[in-house]
Amino acid sequence: MRILLVGSGGVGTAITRIAARRPFFEHMVVADHDLSRAQAAVAALGERAGRFTSARVDAADGAAVTALLAGHGCDVLLNATDPRFVSPLFEAALAAGAGYLDMAMSLSRPHPDRPYEKVGVKLGDEQFARADAWAASGRLALVGMGVEPGLSDVFARYAADELFDEIEEIGVRDGGDLTVEGYAFAPSFSIWTTIEECLNPPVVYDKDRGWYTTEPFSEPEIFDFPEGIGPVECVNVEHEEVVLVPRWVDAGRVTFKYGLGQDFIDKLKALHAMGLAGTEPIEVRSGQGTVLVAPRDVVAAALPDPAGLGGHMRGRTCAGTWVKGVKDGRPREVYLYHVVDNAWSMREYGSQAVVWQTAVNPVVALELLAGGVWKGTGVLGPEAFDARPFLDLLAAYGSPWGLREQ
Amino acid sequence: MRILLVGSGGVGTAITRIAARRPFFEHMVVADHDLSRAQAAVAALGERAGRFTSARVDAADGAAVTALLAGHGCDVLLNATDPRFVSPLFEAALAAGAGYLDMAMSLSRPHPDRPYEKVGVKLGDEQFARADAWAASGRLALVGMGVEPGLSDVFARYAADELFDEIEEIGVRDGGDLTVEGYAFAPSFSIWTTIEECLNPPVVYDKDRGWYTTEPFSEPEIFDFPEGIGPVECVNVEHEEVVLVPRWVDAGRVTFKYGLGQDFIDKLKALHAMGLAGTEPIEVRSGQGTVLVAPRDVVAAALPDPAGLGGHMRGRTCAGTWVKGVKDGRPREVYLYHVVDNAWSMREYGSQAVVWQTAVNPVVALELLAGGVWKGTGVLGPEAFDARPFLDLLAAYGSPWGLREQ
Repeated sequence: MRILLVGSGGVGTAITRIAARRPFFEHMVVADHDLSRAQAAVAALGERAGRFTSARVDAADGAAVTALLAGHGCDVLLNATDPRFVSPLFEAALAAGAGYLDMAMSLSRPHPDRPYEKVGVKLGDEQFARADAWAASGRLALVGMGVEPGLSDVFARYAADELFDEIEEIGVRDGGDLTVEGYAFAPSFSIWTTIEECLNPPVVYDKDRGWYTTEPFSEPEIFDFPEGIGPVECVNVEHEEVVLVPRWVDAGRVTFKYGLGQDFIDKLKALHAMGLAGTEPIEVRSGQGTVLVAPRDVVAAALPDPAGLGGHMRGRTCAGTWVKGVKDGRPREVYLYHVVDNAWSMREYGSQAVVWQTAVNPVVALELLAGGVWKGTGVLGPEAFDARPFLDLLAAYGSPWGLREQ
Repeated sequence: MRILLVGSGGVGTAITRIAARRPFFEHMVVADHDLSRAQAAVAALGERAGRFTSARVDAADGAAVTALLAGHGCDVLLNATDPRFVSPLFEAALAAGAGYLDMAMSLSRPHPDRPYEKVGVKLGDEQFARADAWAASGRLALVGMGVEPGLSDVFARYAADELFDEIEEIGVRDGGDLTVEGYAFAPSFSIWTTIEECLNPPVVYDKDRGWYTTEPFSEPEIFDFPEGIGPVECVNVEHEEVVLVPRWVDAGRVTFKYGLGQDFIDKLKALHAMGLAGTEPIEVRSGQGTVLVAPRDVVAAALPDPAGLGGHMRGRTCAGTWVKGVKDGRPREVYLYHVVDNAWSMREYGSQAVVWQTAVNPVVALELLAGGVWKGTGVLGPEAFDARPFLDLLAAYGSPWGLREQ
């Protein structure tokens, strides 16, 4: 397997460090709009850098990406950019006859009239609309294959196959006890993506009603996270699992709730109220005259790069899937989860916990695809595949998962 | 009198509308970095536009400002720009041998080691350092001559001259019940200036201790504003009155508290925590490649222009000076205040209440200077002049002030 990794930010860099220890692939090209960032990622691999090369590419330039895939004879494109670039990279891979993986799906657009009630264009709709073309090409686009979406979807499939006869609700719940020292405000994941998912109307799936939306930050609940993290207030957030899981897993209801914390929610609301969350460029006076910049890009530029915060972080991040249903005629409730301690990921990989937890999952998936354990064609989510081999291999990577009976 | 007005934003435009009804001056040149904005201000005067011309000028370009003053034979420069341009305009007026008025003073710099305890460079320090040069030129720089600072300082002088034998404390208190409809967040005054004054360490004057600073938003108190506005929570904010009043008025303590409201305070704190209040340019990706923009300029560009909000605003703004002391051997406490109703200022002048209230005061002062009622040389604050003629003329402009015995 020859892999083109596009994007060498926090998650992309962690991917190189995890993949470098696994023999399943032949070569990985690490490409970024900023060549020096790709070069730094490869250089940091030290004596493990042999199978890696770096390249410069503009992820929005489909022809350039297709040429890069062809030029390096890559079988698969692994997309580690922010969600704006999903569609061009997904199309470039198809055009090149390569496979494709991503960790976030094509962006949604709210319903024009009733944004907090009805779905408009859903996450991934653009990608599923191309499923026939992918099936015809005989290639696989494995979408939403990070930790959330990704591992959370694998957990949902595992629960359906092995733990339940009937599922009432699948609720992805994300929380942690991470703190960042020395900064007034320093999100541990891409603020661009966090704004996108948190300020869009959250999507909920109900078997009778289908997909619908609510107001942002709706339906707060206290969820008790395992391994000593404890209770965290979680709220509805737009996330891919809600649109992916019902396509392959039979469940009465699917939700996603994020343990953002009140301070983070207040900051996001403030950005929104002040017009600073937007992605449309506005005119701003500068030393170079009037320039056009998107306020959200300014927010991202003003905050510290989350990938560089690992040394200032303490605590753990937990991703997981809570499932409620019936097994052998009796009610059952479980939480399937994956915890990463920042001290461990920094010591073992030099990557902070949140980006490492995102990065490990597409590498596990690529290894299953390379070995023919997972196979398929078309546009598929993680829950379209057998869950057990994924969970076993994840544990073999040194990062075990857990199951708590509630 | 021939006046060069620099800056035709909200306050500058209101100045033209107020001045156009007064015969005391011969000509006013309205200059702005954006010529179309200056032209629009003059055009809006209609049949009263005869004594006005418009011009383009970069307020930071001292030579250009000096040339403009000379070219139009102006006696005085009225600065209605944001406080970044105080120093270049103040120097340009001196170089041209013209007089100078402003409504905000040269910026402060926090104490390098103990910013929330000791003053560093205070507001106006740069200007007072040039007092000898101004005195030698025989010209007057009247600094801080808006509403706050400005009218609030006139009130302090009036209290000292006519209402008290001894003053324990002078506390400027600003509040209102203005609301803006149809916007999630729409400040009614320049956000650039508001961020500057609210996020800097507030300065307090104590006769024994001198000037010192505190944490931002310190010492909240509920102040009951007159004419039905009612109680508003006010907090310490850095403001010119605290450095101006003690230079001419004997008082045990001088403070400034602003009725910002918790929502506004939270927004300002959020901007600060996210690195978005800063004025140093940062690198941001844009469609034109990497550009350099100051985050605070982006915040200002993303919010609606306060000058255009008058039609969406309701309510009143109140500026005033609370004084506590002794008169004829008995304790006395008064609040001297000025209230502007947005409905009135919109109807009479087409200007929203907050910018109109700022704009009327320098026009009154210019009229007193033109008539020789106020005279002086050097760098002087409003409290260096006799208060009574100012307060009488303000009332004659149709905008009376009030006195409440507490």
